[in-house]
Amino acid sequence: MRRLEVIAVEGLPEVRPGDRLAALLAATADLADGDVVVVTQKVVSKAEGRMVAVDPNDPAAYAAVIERESVRVLRRRDDLVISETAGGFVCANAGVDRSNVPHGFVTLLPLDADRSARSIRDGLRFAPGVDVAVIVSDTFGRTWRNGVTDVAIGCAGIGAVVDLRGTPDAMGRVLDATEVAVADELAGAAELVMGKSSGVPAAIVRGVDPSWLRPGSVRSQMVRHPSGDLFR
Amino acid sequence: MRRLEVIAVEGLPEVRPGDRLAALLAATADLADGDVVVVTQKVVSKAEGRMVAVDPNDPAAYAAVIERESVRVLRRRDDLVISETAGGFVCANAGVDRSNVPHGFVTLLPLDADRSARSIRDGLRFAPGVDVAVIVSDTFGRTWRNGVTDVAIGCAGIGAVVDLRGTPDAMGRVLDATEVAVADELAGAAELVMGKSSGVPAAIVRGVDPSWLRPGSVRSQMVRHPSGDLFR
Repeated sequence: MRRLEVIAVEGLPEVRPGDRLAALLAATADLADGDVVVVTQKVVSKAEGRMVAVDPNDPAAYAAVIERESVRVLRRRDDLVISETAGGFVCANAGVDRSNVPHGFVTLLPLDADRSARSIRDGLRFAPGVDVAVIVSDTFGRTWRNGVTDVAIGCAGIGAVVDLRGTPDAMGRVLDATEVAVADELAGAAELVMGKSSGVPAAIVRGVDPSWLRPGSVRSQMVRHPSGDLFR
Repeated sequence: MRRLEVIAVEGLPEVRPGDRLAALLAATADLADGDVVVVTQKVVSKAEGRMVAVDPNDPAAYAAVIERESVRVLRRRDDLVISETAGGFVCANAGVDRSNVPHGFVTLLPLDADRSARSIRDGLRFAPGVDVAVIVSDTFGRTWRNGVTDVAIGCAGIGAVVDLRGTPDAMGRVLDATEVAVADELAGAAELVMGKSSGVPAAIVRGVDPSWLRPGSVRSQMVRHPSGDLFR
């Protein structure tokens, strides 16, 4: 656990509705037990048919899709909407995205990205028969800081948050608050080898701490309930 | 840029005020040109003497240090304070930290972590004579998501945010908003090999895109000005 490799998965074909991502990954990537496979929301949404046609010359049509995908709007400025999705994510434009999508279409977030991750994980366990963790990633902005990072919107076979509370630090002092969002750090690490414009939609992180490889869920572990939130 | 390695730097001695981190890193790590060296705030603050004695049995003394380090308080709940520091960071307890610090002391954030990173980078350029980027990382919570991640609070020799706007995506469409906070993703990747309780305060990321290795600053590139912020 003292060394990680982050490897881009290159050569995936353009993904279309109905495609089985596990089969495409199995044919492209050289996977090993214990790997974490990070797959972008974009290809997951395409495979799951989470695309809708939107007239590219009609900004109101795009805005209407964003409204439909939002359960609560937190902020608006000009064209930008920061809203909460049905899945509990707070992000720009409710995750509705036009980049790397065929002209005239947008992608919506997967209905349940934890389930999407489980499905890919189960597919890879069947063939080629590897036991991997899967993270579905998306690109989110952040409060107070410029620049976007990739974060996890779904996971399977890995804890989204690893709780190190109660572990003594190097000074023997019990740590205060160290629930580490490893799924987000892994999604961000994967982004570093993907690049935004290159169309590489998956990466492998090899060498993670085996103790993290256990049942996990972004929805139940990482999405903060509004009642516990100081900024909603 | 299709493969990264993330390598923990093990064996650093306990850092004390006045220590030269570049010399300690040079003696411990096997560095190469183009590496990104991620060093945690904790050891940077220790080396720079940014520690103050706080009676561990007096919660009010700890709270007073946090108030002093804050220029604006955004939220309070019980003992938790979310505030803005003089350096423009919005984080819990103004970055004042008790973990991995000798009993009876707390660390404060470096006065200028970009400068801290530059100093380490310059030291390593002198001896052993390697041209590396340096990121100073710290552990921050996030709005709307449980779990902490490591982010960059200072950098040198690498852009904190890499602007891919205007680059066509794989469909030929010009991307909307892709200023990627690579320094934060690198800090998070480094955290994955450090662990919170193991006292490993530095890691190397090898293999980043050479075009990112240029003058950079967290303060000027990544800290969002309050006037452009929807959540302040």
